[in-house]
Amino acid sequence: MTDQFLTSKPYKGTRDFYPDEMRMRAWVFSTMRRVAEDFGYEEMSGPIVERFDLYAAKSGEELVNEQIYHFEDKSGRRLAIRPEMTPTVARMVAARLEQLTLPLRWYSIANFMRYERPQKGRLREHWQLNVDVLGESTVRADAEIIGVVAALMRSFGADGSMFRIKISDRRLFNDVLRNLLDVGDNEIQTISKAVDKRAKISREDYEAWLAESGIAKEKIALLDDVFESSLSDIAGRLSSASQGAESLETLFSLLDQAGVSDVCQFDFAIVRGFDYYTGMVFEVEDASPDNRRSLFGGGRYDNLVGLFRKSEVSGVGFGFGDVTFQDFLTAHGLIPSDLGGRPTALIVTFDGVAYAEYLKLAEELRSGGIANAVYFDQGAKLKKQMQFAERKGFALAVLLGEDELASGKIVVKQMASRRQLTLDRADCVEQITKMLEDT
Amino acid sequence: MTDQFLTSKPYKGTRDFYPDEMRMRAWVFSTMRRVAEDFGYEEMSGPIVERFDLYAAKSGEELVNEQIYHFEDKSGRRLAIRPEMTPTVARMVAARLEQLTLPLRWYSIANFMRYERPQKGRLREHWQLNVDVLGESTVRADAEIIGVVAALMRSFGADGSMFRIKISDRRLFNDVLRNLLDVGDNEIQTISKAVDKRAKISREDYEAWLAESGIAKEKIALLDDVFESSLSDIAGRLSSASQGAESLETLFSLLDQAGVSDVCQFDFAIVRGFDYYTGMVFEVEDASPDNRRSLFGGGRYDNLVGLFRKSEVSGVGFGFGDVTFQDFLTAHGLIPSDLGGRPTALIVTFDGVAYAEYLKLAEELRSGGIANAVYFDQGAKLKKQMQFAERKGFALAVLLGEDELASGKIVVKQMASRRQLTLDRADCVEQITKMLEDT
Repeated sequence: MTDQFLTSKPYKGTRDFYPDEMRMRAWVFSTMRRVAEDFGYEEMSGPIVERFDLYAAKSGEELVNEQIYHFEDKSGRRLAIRPEMTPTVARMVAARLEQLTLPLRWYSIANFMRYERPQKGRLREHWQLNVDVLGESTVRADAEIIGVVAALMRSFGADGSMFRIKISDRRLFNDVLRNLLDVGDNEIQTISKAVDKRAKISREDYEAWLAESGIAKEKIALLDDVFESSLSDIAGRLSSASQGAESLETLFSLLDQAGVSDVCQFDFAIVRGFDYYTGMVFEVEDASPDNRRSLFGGGRYDNLVGLFRKSEVSGVGFGFGDVTFQDFLTAHGLIPSDLGGRPTALIVTFDGVAYAEYLKLAEELRSGGIANAVYFDQGAKLKKQMQFAERKGFALAVLLGEDELASGKIVVKQMASRRQLTLDRADCVEQITKMLEDT
Repeated sequence: MTDQFLTSKPYKGTRDFYPDEMRMRAWVFSTMRRVAEDFGYEEMSGPIVERFDLYAAKSGEELVNEQIYHFEDKSGRRLAIRPEMTPTVARMVAARLEQLTLPLRWYSIANFMRYERPQKGRLREHWQLNVDVLGESTVRADAEIIGVVAALMRSFGADGSMFRIKISDRRLFNDVLRNLLDVGDNEIQTISKAVDKRAKISREDYEAWLAESGIAKEKIALLDDVFESSLSDIAGRLSSASQGAESLETLFSLLDQAGVSDVCQFDFAIVRGFDYYTGMVFEVEDASPDNRRSLFGGGRYDNLVGLFRKSEVSGVGFGFGDVTFQDFLTAHGLIPSDLGGRPTALIVTFDGVAYAEYLKLAEELRSGGIANAVYFDQGAKLKKQMQFAERKGFALAVLLGEDELASGKIVVKQMASRRQLTLDRADCVEQITKMLEDT
């Protein structure tokens, strides 16, 4: 034995979900689930650990070198706690390509770990909804994914004044850099990183970053000009047709037809951090002036399944994290006061009645579909038991004293209204069910 | 770029959940959830990583030394991927003891990792339902926990011929060892380990194990005799009253009153592997002669919250893993042929109709609560699209061709019955809803 106590805090950057926090999480997840299934997406999932190689290949330097929790198992295999879902999705598609009927519409809700400095909107463990279309390379899938994003935001009560979906295309970005800025392929990656971080770093740092990559001052100014330009202006300035620009034109027309173009806009500055994106990329931004930050994003990745086998299966999708999003919901007042999921009925116990009678009543109610808990301590005063019911948020208290037992009755008290009814034991299940439906 | 492909297999002992496997998992979890909530339990959860110390103190030597995945973070903190839930539950109770109203009825469904040799019923990552009562030290909570176990098994369709709940008490075990076998406290731990593994190892290994701990042959024989004895026989042979025996007598009487004693029995050989159990312990055993193995178990732990602060909060509960249990469900034919969760409607697309019309129809159906997916490739033959609907398990195919569009109709085909109906577009949502309710 030791005299020293262990700390009761969770590991830095991770969260404990007590029943209250869990009700919030359950409400968020069930809303996400409903929207994904409304669009015909099927739920899947993968392991919490993967081989480290899975991320080393394509996820991007910052994630791999700085953010992944990795370690060796007893056989010397280098493993990682998953930092994101997309590589797992690509691996699973590659593993069963012959048996799967493409295209796939898949979603998952899973937890991830990244070594981050914990701060507002950023933790070390977070949960994420991932939604992907695999095996459909046309822009129709891109449009559907953006449609799912818009439906998700709306299903949480967010309207067009609260968020914007900003969309661009990696191919257009590359074309502009090659064609207008005349930079080589090696520099494109560096510039895209600088552009991705532009909103988060100072203007000086941004310019220094580009200068280090050999980008001249006048090219930085040219790039500034592109950020302010419309899609057709940019396309017009290129010396040859850009597949990215054409694809974006089609995408915006489909988004218009799908009735979601009011919350969407083109933004050349959207590039996304992951190296694996090859086509359309997007970010959802909080539109409120005092919290203009990216909530989540996604895009098209063409080469991921090719890491595992000789085949081309294009994917498009996004990961929607819970931490930033809960801040968004709070800031916009979108969390309902009643999240549901509170316990139903507390059976109050009295000293003069055999405890077995309460076990019997509990079983009767459960068989009738009425969830309930029995108060263990028969010696406790009625007042204490009612306080317990109140604190735990039970909808009802069910009272069975000596008199009720003798006369075949029970007393049911509605906690919110304090209304109290004496019911015949014989048909109490129907009566209580009705009471619960009315509240 | 590299010519070598990465393996598409998941890490050894972990599972990929494709939509089919996920439907199975969702069915198991939702059944577990329903039963726990029927008994008034509230859902909670904790982080996937915890400090290593949390397990080092009380979980037991085998688990800590051989089975925990542990590693250091960049600040040198020793962390573990959680191998079980109970220490997290105890930590969370300790952290908010002032704010929580005891007793707590908590449950969680979470994933865990253990370094095991993968084999039937045993993997490295598994999912587990954990159910606990905290802050209620009477045997009534023990009885309730056993009642939840019985209700869980029955809710999956298991009857008394398929499983047994075998129950004992650590205090009784200690009393018998001290009093009848005259062994010291240091040897009790070793003997309990040997007894726990008795069914899994050979008689020779079992005897050698005990002999090494200094247990004489005649004491092993005495122990054999105790294994075969009834609770009252054992209690009668002790020179003084055993709290464990008395508590078990009360427990069995409560289980009788709760109507679950038919699936319960006393078994002195039940000790459980975790060091933290201090009172009642139980295991659920597959009763079929060719698969007589332990499915899961639990018990009472009195000192866990005391690791974190000066306080005594007693707990009782269990962890119900999914791997062994799916084998059990399969062996007893308890998995329903239709697990639910298949996609609802596929919108078939025709070349002569603008794609925008399908986006519009999809939105109409979704607004009416009918989940659907649009077939992306308008060029595909009807036969191919219908095959797709069949393979993915859509309940309905919705057809909108040029003629239907002109006449304000749609055609709905029920995939299972092949029945086909032409509906007015105006009230198709109600019609389709009715069709779905009828199937």
